[in-house]
Amino acid sequence: MTSSSRLMYLPLGGAGEIGMNCYVYGYGPQGKERFILVDIGVSFPDMDGTPGVDLILPDIAWIAERADRLDGIFITHAHEDHVGALGHLYRHFPGVPVFARAFTAIIATRKLEETGQDPAMVQIAPVWPETVQAGPYTVGFAPTSHSIPEASALIIDTPEGRIVHSGDFKIDPDPGLGEPFDPAMWEEIGKTGVRALICDSTNVFSRHPGRSESDLPGPITDLVAGAKGMVVATTFASNVSRVKTLAEAGRAAGRTVCLMGRAMKRMVAVAQESGVLGDFPATVSPEEATQVPRENLMLIVTGSQGERRAASAAMARGKYLGHQLKEGDTFLFSSKTIPGNEIAVGRIQNAMSEAGVEIVDEQTGFYHVSGHANRPDLERMHGLLKPQILVPNHGEHRHLREHCRVAAEGGMTPVLAPNGALVELSGNAPGVVEHIEVSRTYLDGSRLVGALDGVVRDRMKLALNGLVVVALIIDEEDEPIEDSWVELRGLPDTAGDTSLSEMIEDQLSDLLPRLDRKTVMDDDKLEEAVRRVARQVCVSEIGRKPEVTVVISRLMAA
Amino acid sequence: MTSSSRLMYLPLGGAGEIGMNCYVYGYGPQGKERFILVDIGVSFPDMDGTPGVDLILPDIAWIAERADRLDGIFITHAHEDHVGALGHLYRHFPGVPVFARAFTAIIATRKLEETGQDPAMVQIAPVWPETVQAGPYTVGFAPTSHSIPEASALIIDTPEGRIVHSGDFKIDPDPGLGEPFDPAMWEEIGKTGVRALICDSTNVFSRHPGRSESDLPGPITDLVAGAKGMVVATTFASNVSRVKTLAEAGRAAGRTVCLMGRAMKRMVAVAQESGVLGDFPATVSPEEATQVPRENLMLIVTGSQGERRAASAAMARGKYLGHQLKEGDTFLFSSKTIPGNEIAVGRIQNAMSEAGVEIVDEQTGFYHVSGHANRPDLERMHGLLKPQILVPNHGEHRHLREHCRVAAEGGMTPVLAPNGALVELSGNAPGVVEHIEVSRTYLDGSRLVGALDGVVRDRMKLALNGLVVVALIIDEEDEPIEDSWVELRGLPDTAGDTSLSEMIEDQLSDLLPRLDRKTVMDDDKLEEAVRRVARQVCVSEIGRKPEVTVVISRLMAA
Repeated sequence: MTSSSRLMYLPLGGAGEIGMNCYVYGYGPQGKERFILVDIGVSFPDMDGTPGVDLILPDIAWIAERADRLDGIFITHAHEDHVGALGHLYRHFPGVPVFARAFTAIIATRKLEETGQDPAMVQIAPVWPETVQAGPYTVGFAPTSHSIPEASALIIDTPEGRIVHSGDFKIDPDPGLGEPFDPAMWEEIGKTGVRALICDSTNVFSRHPGRSESDLPGPITDLVAGAKGMVVATTFASNVSRVKTLAEAGRAAGRTVCLMGRAMKRMVAVAQESGVLGDFPATVSPEEATQVPRENLMLIVTGSQGERRAASAAMARGKYLGHQLKEGDTFLFSSKTIPGNEIAVGRIQNAMSEAGVEIVDEQTGFYHVSGHANRPDLERMHGLLKPQILVPNHGEHRHLREHCRVAAEGGMTPVLAPNGALVELSGNAPGVVEHIEVSRTYLDGSRLVGALDGVVRDRMKLALNGLVVVALIIDEEDEPIEDSWVELRGLPDTAGDTSLSEMIEDQLSDLLPRLDRKTVMDDDKLEEAVRRVARQVCVSEIGRKPEVTVVISRLMAA
Repeated sequence: MTSSSRLMYLPLGGAGEIGMNCYVYGYGPQGKERFILVDIGVSFPDMDGTPGVDLILPDIAWIAERADRLDGIFITHAHEDHVGALGHLYRHFPGVPVFARAFTAIIATRKLEETGQDPAMVQIAPVWPETVQAGPYTVGFAPTSHSIPEASALIIDTPEGRIVHSGDFKIDPDPGLGEPFDPAMWEEIGKTGVRALICDSTNVFSRHPGRSESDLPGPITDLVAGAKGMVVATTFASNVSRVKTLAEAGRAAGRTVCLMGRAMKRMVAVAQESGVLGDFPATVSPEEATQVPRENLMLIVTGSQGERRAASAAMARGKYLGHQLKEGDTFLFSSKTIPGNEIAVGRIQNAMSEAGVEIVDEQTGFYHVSGHANRPDLERMHGLLKPQILVPNHGEHRHLREHCRVAAEGGMTPVLAPNGALVELSGNAPGVVEHIEVSRTYLDGSRLVGALDGVVRDRMKLALNGLVVVALIIDEEDEPIEDSWVELRGLPDTAGDTSLSEMIEDQLSDLLPRLDRKTVMDDDKLEEAVRRVARQVCVSEIGRKPEVTVVISRLMAA
């Protein structure tokens, strides 16, 4: 490698937001760097900013243009915000190997299969201290604890030193499934010197040390043992350790256990297939479960975030797969409500409350622990690895900023790098050297739409303002026909005695014959004139300024 | 009063939701009851369920139909979710007196003025033990503490006994402004026997005793004293006691204080006008404040919930009234983020973080206390009043349910009464005797639209699905013209090489000549045939099933 080689880091997603993780590392002479991509996740749309969108994907244009220099894609763990975009975007990286540990690799493989791509591109990576080679990078998967099996930090050795990419992690000496936190291993990793730690920031504002997954079986088992009617519990399906704890609590109380919801069954199956999960309590199908008296039954279901189509919401609405919540049943949310989902979760909790169900959640007792490192745990990791540079990732801007402050207090050089900030990690003055324009991409039906294309913004305008549709006809002599046809969408059609659409039609009948020829012949001018009249009527009659679509039909002489 | 007289309670809003409080009490023979209305508040719309709506009002149809038997409207305090609908709905209750304490009365008066109604209908009520008479009711305003001046519980004496309607309250022995909690007064109120307590449930899930407003000046003063750059603080403008604490902290640190945002100045003015607020620190105008060095300045601004148009959001976006946040400034959220507003608040906090601002909020220290009674405080109030019946109000269904459980444990008879539940409070078996259909009303521009009218639902469909507009012409011989004109809204117009709208037009050119006369002559059938084709093209080309509006222009023979 020449002396002009540099080591760089570029977040394309996940830095300045929670979700949609996607990070590039590069090494080599400028313009000739070799790259690896770490994670390629999604974010989830909401009515507030992305109505009707199916998924939000990172804008990978920058690395796609340099795909011929991409030596590998590394997936830290199988959460959708780390692997969810693989199927949708892999076609931009043909032939590039995807590395992940076994559990994650199965999920990644399915993402490629489901989108008609070659699943053999996914390779199961060994666990640290074994490594894989990708171009100039030697990469190891060091086991961490998180809320999903086989989460890993990446130990990325480069000619410019060692990078540790933490991935989502927590410090858990007894995580239930998977490797307990091993301070000796981390100390050893840090011993040879860590150039930079790129580190999860999600929980940097939580000031108490994190709690262990192993603290939960006690309270959960007691809760289920004391319940009278049917017990239903929900958590993230991918939190297989938690699912197992819930199932074991059911069995301990002598209940028959049933997994409900596609993701729930799939995740347990993947955990078994990958060898992560040893014995799991016996379960019955939802159909078989209908034969079990409710006081002997425990359902473990999807939908802890209030997702409309998941089992929890379906049960809140009524009968689902033969099961219905009733007075005296207990519903346990063994989960945290992700900010933004409060309304959705509240909605199903209220529906359950109306059915007389006992709702148990974080507010009521100790039934959940977070999968992310709180501030004291972050500080502990900093201390074990002693990196020169700390680059916070996976967090909103305020999380990154706070994490920088923590790092500075600990004597590290912090670099605040939101999405698009190209960071030079090598050299004497590490820091942001360039800003790349990165947006986001919407999966919208079967199409990928750029966030800045205006398509979704147009839908939001319709929702906020309503729409007046005006159809005009310009006859064969280029004269407007006096009549126009008006339809309203999302607007009240009652304006006193007359209908609003008729009032607009009347006003247009006045306008159209009086238009000069220049306006009539010019689509833009004609539309503008019609739009102005339609808006004026709406403002005066219903106090709203709607969107207006004008469809002009110009008849051709036969 | 005849022996067949009954005492009843009917929540029209606020029971089964947080916000939009509106409660009816009735006394007399069935069908001839005399009524009072307690509170007439609003809820705030969101993109999720009510895009483009201006305000959500209670559905007051039931009491409006009986307005001739309404003897008074009582407003417990001046928060919008208790008084906000008065101006919009008062026209349904002509001549009915509105009673409130001085601070609240000024706000209520303005609501009537702003909507062109007679402000003299608002009467300032004296404070308990003085009372006002309204039909068969003797009503007293007993001072409570809340997060606004002069909040009151109503002591409603009826021939069937005493009702206490708590309104929003907390127990605060030292609230800063207004009367401290007076256990002797409440014990006295309870001594004569309380038939029913209708009681705030908002914080029933909070298990620790509430904290006092007087705990805040210490930490807030320390924070401001230690700040380096400009200090900006936000809280609800109506929390005049908090605004005063913030201003005094600014003065104590030798800073010039400036109030920013319309509501902030209005609320302080109302507090002074009503005599609630004694001396308030000297303030300067935003313009004058531009002359003060930032390290000597403290702004107190609106927008603690991230409202787009308020001062906080404006400052997060850039310069506002000559002031701009900079690296080293401190922004204090002396507030709680109301569930559902997390995203909006997060958005402005992140924008501030990008500007280098130090953000301080509940997570960082002790800068806010709630205005509602936590569970131990609710239990204390139950104990002081010893009501026979407890009807929880102001809460989502799960809050009402939990409060019923607390009441049952305390030996009271709980009645779970969500909106529309008509409760008989008199007699030997108090409880819900009838369910009234209550909806909600949207203020949509200048129109009131029923929540079930479908207008807003239609806007949501447009946002979720996008829209295809098709204009068709049926000529003078009742034959469709082969050409149609298609416009898209909120849909990508790129479908491979051809545009999507052209593909739909092409398919319709195939369809239209082949339609039978019966279909062509029938608007509904014709629309359906066209809609089907437009949807088919969209499903196959962009994987979406859009809304379709078909405008049919039927030309008449001249």
